[in-house]
Amino acid sequence: MVETLTLYTAKICPFAQRVELALEESGAKYEKFQVDLQNKPEWYAPKVNPASKVPALAYGGPPVPPSQPSPESTKLAESLVLLEFVADLFPASHLLPKSPVERAKARFFIDAVSTKLLPKFFGFVMRGEVEGGETLYKAIEELQTLIEGKYALGDEWSIADAALTPFLARLELSLRKDLGGFKEGEGTKLLGRLKEGTKFEVFWKYFENVTQRESFKKTFDEVRGSVATLFPFRQDVQYSSP
Amino acid sequence: MVETLTLYTAKICPFAQRVELALEESGAKYEKFQVDLQNKPEWYAPKVNPASKVPALAYGGPPVPPSQPSPESTKLAESLVLLEFVADLFPASHLLPKSPVERAKARFFIDAVSTKLLPKFFGFVMRGEVEGGETLYKAIEELQTLIEGKYALGDEWSIADAALTPFLARLELSLRKDLGGFKEGEGTKLLGRLKEGTKFEVFWKYFENVTQRESFKKTFDEVRGSVATLFPFRQDVQYSSP
Ligand SMILES: N[C@@H](CCC(=O)N[C@@H](CS)C(=O)NCC(=O)O)C(=O)O
Ligand SMILES: N[C@@H](CCC(=O)N[C@@H](CS)C(=O)NCC(=O)O)C(=O)O
Repeated sequence: MVETLTLYTAKICPFAQRVELALEESGAKYEKFQVDLQNKPEWYAPKVNPASKVPALAYGGPPVPPSQPSPESTKLAESLVLLEFVADLFPASHLLPKSPVERAKARFFIDAVSTKLLPKFFGFVMRGEVEGGETLYKAIEELQTLIEGKYALGDEWSIADAALTPFLARLELSLRKDLGGFKEGEGTKLLGRLKEGTKFEVFWKYFENVTQRESFKKTFDEVRGSVATLFPFRQDVQYSSP
Repeated sequence: MVETLTLYTAKICPFAQRVELALEESGAKYEKFQVDLQNKPEWYAPKVNPASKVPALAYGGPPVPPSQPSPESTKLAESLVLLEFVADLFPASHLLPKSPVERAKARFFIDAVSTKLLPKFFGFVMRGEVEGGETLYKAIEELQTLIEGKYALGDEWSIADAALTPFLARLELSLRKDLGGFKEGEGTKLLGRLKEGTKFEVFWKYFENVTQRESFKKTFDEVRGSVATLFPFRQDVQYSSP
């Protein structure tokens, strides 16, 4: 039986884009509701996610407009929980491999994204911490060793890629536009180091592979999406698509 | 086919006990190797876990003594990854429910343990942070709302319980013995507040349910295990079983 499925999301949010990617790749029919994070609907926390964050999913229950969530649907939150949920709901889409060892590798990869990359990403790109560029460089170096092929696990796209891609896209954009919590010029400088020689060849090839997928193009909004909203203090800057 | 399975563990380590619990509950045949964390075997990092931590699993490959790990076995690490791995390897043991929604609830519970309880646990019990007692109290209050019955998910024990129990056991022990990074008397005081009235009835009933299981009794070593090793600076204290 196909249950109703509504994703509460926001273009700015990399955590939410993770789940959009998995849903797109699953082929599921689902509805998207954009939550304005600057001005959240007053029903959102009490009726959808008490933590008042996106992403969240409403699953099952009668078909209702997303702005009137039914008490009969199950509400679920936390992007990594939702990735596993989408993989469980649509086993035929192979968002996770079948083999226990391969599944463990996917989860180990996701854990590395959470514990190794994200703290450095937020440290440098958002908070502009001194030395942030250096530790972020090292984190990418380490992450690269875990990439097994075209995608994180090799030939097949998986939720391990969904967990990482939204952050890579925002990272690349932030460095390329030199727009972040860091000092002017530091973004471009780090990007230069990452593009130098062949050291990060596997990483950039990977970046190309994941961002060329339809699921990514359909769910990433460069202009309205990330940078302008992440760094409103520099809304004077002109954005243009790459 | 039954593959060889070796767990690298240490009695002191709550992360490692998580995996011991899941393996015990799975009914799996496995071998345990105690890693002396104060004096790790020099083959451990290069041959088992480059992060040089317990827990780690060696899976498959020829039967070998744990101290001579075969390059042919798959090495896996990270306690939460290993919990899912054990659940995937032994589906008949129902360490995770079958329903995607119930599985999501288990993972949401585990996420709450990681992001809400553990930082406060380490803050108060290990580092004795000022106000640690108060925020830990609040974290337990919040966690309690997620406990659905006899176990985290209701009637059936699951890896959600495996993720939490080792930390609860060490917490209770540390408060009861008043032995931790906190100031003398603060442990007993917090325990008193948690035992006062009926506010934490669900929590304590849960504590009893999980610690009464054979899997727990078999894998928790109160004396040699946690406290004395966690707080060697107070090894003058006399331990007695409860
Ligand atoms: N741990 C959460 C993080 C989600 C999160 O932080 N979402 C942000 C937007 S990217 C949010 O909704 N914030 C709400 C707010 O700031 O009020 C997950 O993985 O889903
Ligand atoms: N995130 C890891 C943490 C494991 C961990 O921190 N283990 C500690 C013992 S409790 C360890 O092996 N430390 C090695 C060392 O301190 O050298 C997991 O969940 O498995």
